Amino acid sequence: MSASWSTSLLTDMYELTMVEAALAHGTAHRRSVFELFGRRLPAARRFGVVAGTGRLLEALERFEFTKDDIDYLHNNKVVNEQTLEFLKDFKFQGNIWGYREGDVYFANSPLLTVEGTFAEACLLETMLLSVLNHDCAVASAASRMTIAAHGRPCLDMGARRTHERAGVSAARAAFIGGFVGTSDLEAGKRYGLPTIGTSAHSFTLLHETEEEAFKAQVDTLGPGTTLLVDTFDIPKGVETAVRVAREAGGELGAVRIDSGDLVAQAFKVRGQLDALGAKDTKITVTSDLDEYAIAALGAAPVDSYGVGTKLVTGSGIPTAALVYKLVEREGVEGYMEGVAKRSKSKSTIAGRKWAARAFDEDGYAVEERLYVGNREDFKDAIVAGDEDELTLRPLQIKLVEEGNIDRTWYGPQALLRAAEYHQKVRNQLPYAAWRLSEGEPAVETRVVPLASAAKPN
Amino acid sequence: MSASWSTSLLTDMYELTMVEAALAHGTAHRRSVFELFGRRLPAARRFGVVAGTGRLLEALERFEFTKDDIDYLHNNKVVNEQTLEFLKDFKFQGNIWGYREGDVYFANSPLLTVEGTFAEACLLETMLLSVLNHDCAVASAASRMTIAAHGRPCLDMGARRTHERAGVSAARAAFIGGFVGTSDLEAGKRYGLPTIGTSAHSFTLLHETEEEAFKAQVDTLGPGTTLLVDTFDIPKGVETAVRVAREAGGELGAVRIDSGDLVAQAFKVRGQLDALGAKDTKITVTSDLDEYAIAALGAAPVDSYGVGTKLVTGSGIPTAALVYKLVEREGVEGYMEGVAKRSKSKSTIAGRKWAARAFDEDGYAVEERLYVGNREDFKDAIVAGDEDELTLRPLQIKLVEEGNIDRTWYGPQALLRAAEYHQKVRNQLPYAAWRLSEGEPAVETRVVPLASAAKPN
Repeated sequence: MSASWSTSLLTDMYELTMVEAALAHGTAHRRSVFELFGRRLPAARRFGVVAGTGRLLEALERFEFTKDDIDYLHNNKVVNEQTLEFLKDFKFQGNIWGYREGDVYFANSPLLTVEGTFAEACLLETMLLSVLNHDCAVASAASRMTIAAHGRPCLDMGARRTHERAGVSAARAAFIGGFVGTSDLEAGKRYGLPTIGTSAHSFTLLHETEEEAFKAQVDTLGPGTTLLVDTFDIPKGVETAVRVAREAGGELGAVRIDSGDLVAQAFKVRGQLDALGAKDTKITVTSDLDEYAIAALGAAPVDSYGVGTKLVTGSGIPTAALVYKLVEREGVEGYMEGVAKRSKSKSTIAGRKWAARAFDEDGYAVEERLYVGNREDFKDAIVAGDEDELTLRPLQIKLVEEGNIDRTWYGPQALLRAAEYHQKVRNQLPYAAWRLSEGEPAVETRVVPLASAAKPN
Repeated sequence: MSASWSTSLLTDMYELTMVEAALAHGTAHRRSVFELFGRRLPAARRFGVVAGTGRLLEALERFEFTKDDIDYLHNNKVVNEQTLEFLKDFKFQGNIWGYREGDVYFANSPLLTVEGTFAEACLLETMLLSVLNHDCAVASAASRMTIAAHGRPCLDMGARRTHERAGVSAARAAFIGGFVGTSDLEAGKRYGLPTIGTSAHSFTLLHETEEEAFKAQVDTLGPGTTLLVDTFDIPKGVETAVRVAREAGGELGAVRIDSGDLVAQAFKVRGQLDALGAKDTKITVTSDLDEYAIAALGAAPVDSYGVGTKLVTGSGIPTAALVYKLVEREGVEGYMEGVAKRSKSKSTIAGRKWAARAFDEDGYAVEERLYVGNREDFKDAIVAGDEDELTLRPLQIKLVEEGNIDRTWYGPQALLRAAEYHQKVRNQLPYAAWRLSEGEPAVETRVVPLASAAKPN
């Protein structure tokens, strides 16, 4: 009844039955290339943020079918004996390329490219999509919020508004998007994130008076703590808070406001704090913040933002709508062939894509280019340079080589680098990327066929 | 770096720092009553569905601070030594009452009532909210979808669209809301849910022709399988699918359509299947379905619905917006006192609430009543009956008594009962509950003070 250690069953059943059919038919071992991408940016977002790469590499290390898993599949007749034999020994032996965690992405950007046999690339589909669909959605929302915050710290307080394990991953994704701390202790423990916290209304209500509650908190946590001042009456709360901190021998660290008109309240509270001489006491606001509310608070005297619901639910876009599609596979004669489906409104572009971002002379991104063909031709194209004298930066790195995971790309250090990298690449986007309004992607995607493009099936 | 076995750190840091301050101040052990509820139903929903109760009881069993957890808290100076000592031995010893899993709820319905010391009830806050906010959101969406489906089976295919662990819980919540199967194998293993699956476009594209792919699948999985017919051209796909199944000696089980105008396609495909004599071959549709799309397909010849994104993201409402508030606590003289905050637009109702649903003579729910006071008075009120001759059904059961979890309420049998119970209580709701349009809750909530209502603080 407890959660599996292995990640292999975090998988749609049809991945296994497809492998079963392909094994029986002799096509399971055909070399294949799958790409993970979004057909378009969701709901008029200007850019997406790549997050989850470190998590999926960790999950890949535990992607094995334990005896317990095999027993379940056997007892429930999910697949036949031949397939169970295959799964027992399964370990992904292929390659995975991907955008760097923290990078931005646009329509059709191949966030991941998985090379392997059909069977092994197929088995990873659900897990890869789950991790990236969630984490990219949260990181993309976080990035918009930190843009709106204009350098004021944003803090994740969303654990309670989402699935308990998703909250841990959301804290990590938010950090990539520029958040500087999280309330979630498991995220602190697991990913080395700074943890933060203030106090709840229940703590005030536990005590006979607000003053007693403030004293209890200040006596224990010191005057530098953050007191929640809106349980009863804000002006009275602020006055008490400042006084209690001073009685304890210091100046109050901060007050938190969690209700009412935050813009008006912030001005009033700042005025009151200043009048009381508490000029260094900061103001943190919470209460259903999203990027728009944060932007609206831009001119208000607020020092930091605590964000919950809208962060962990992707601010209206809880999933990044990424898909995982076969783009090339080995034909009967052993050559790779580009493949694509032609379903209405869901057609795909055949052939493996190599991505590069083109920058103008001022260093701003102007185009996302997807070169279709082999890697040698791609390298030649990059080295040859661009006819419009744009600078080209290849975007994909090798995350997994013949099943060996490059550990450079996960762990706390990789997470720090991803957050830094995101700041860097975001600064290279044109101004349109920073707009919160709905609109076109900040950077257009262009598909460029190379001479070596796999012949279409 | 791997996920903790314990659930105790799935917790906001401030829960621990509040406990620290309360321990130091001598108020941590005050008897307290917290309620978990929604101030209103989200975005004009007609009713909510209680889901997650079984999961939170499981999580509660593992809510302990392991040496690893304590080391993390110590090394990162999250709380002081006194608090660490308290946490080391922590085990919840209080009571938890709650609505039955599968029940419906309305504004202010106390889905959970936690009785214990302040410290122990405070520590559970984040975990309880995370589990119920997620699971209730998904189950509520699922219930609307199964209403719209009018008895046609709905199948969860959403794992890839949400966090990998949230997907497992979403499958479970969907089952409570009336779904009959899931694609998620971990959900099958962990909760005993029926697993289902068809095939992906990549499987078709792996093969030289659609026909070869269909043969591979039918040869292995039998003619009763579901073939995906929209990779290239639907009429051709359907013709090939039926023929391949017959060549294998049977009639095709089903076809899946995953793109285009599903209503029009369903009629065309049904007509084609019938013309081919494949009258028993079923049609399953997928592709961004939600309750509205399902309702629109009501008159179309569709046999089942595969739902992904909109199910696991709560169909526009990814979190149930439930909160956890202190409503009573022991005063300095040892009596329980009702407490409430008065924050703008976030005020709460003081005092512990006992819930009953009132039914008219036809057996339809007409009112959700929250009696404020002690249990004896509540029982008297129920036994005395209603002045309007309504039938009253108490809604809360004891899930945990002095720390002992009632295992009746979790595990696969409890899950089956929850799904059945949901069908029963949903059928007792007035017609308005079944409407998909936004509007008022199907049942009003009324607060009824009893003589014993705890005196307000």
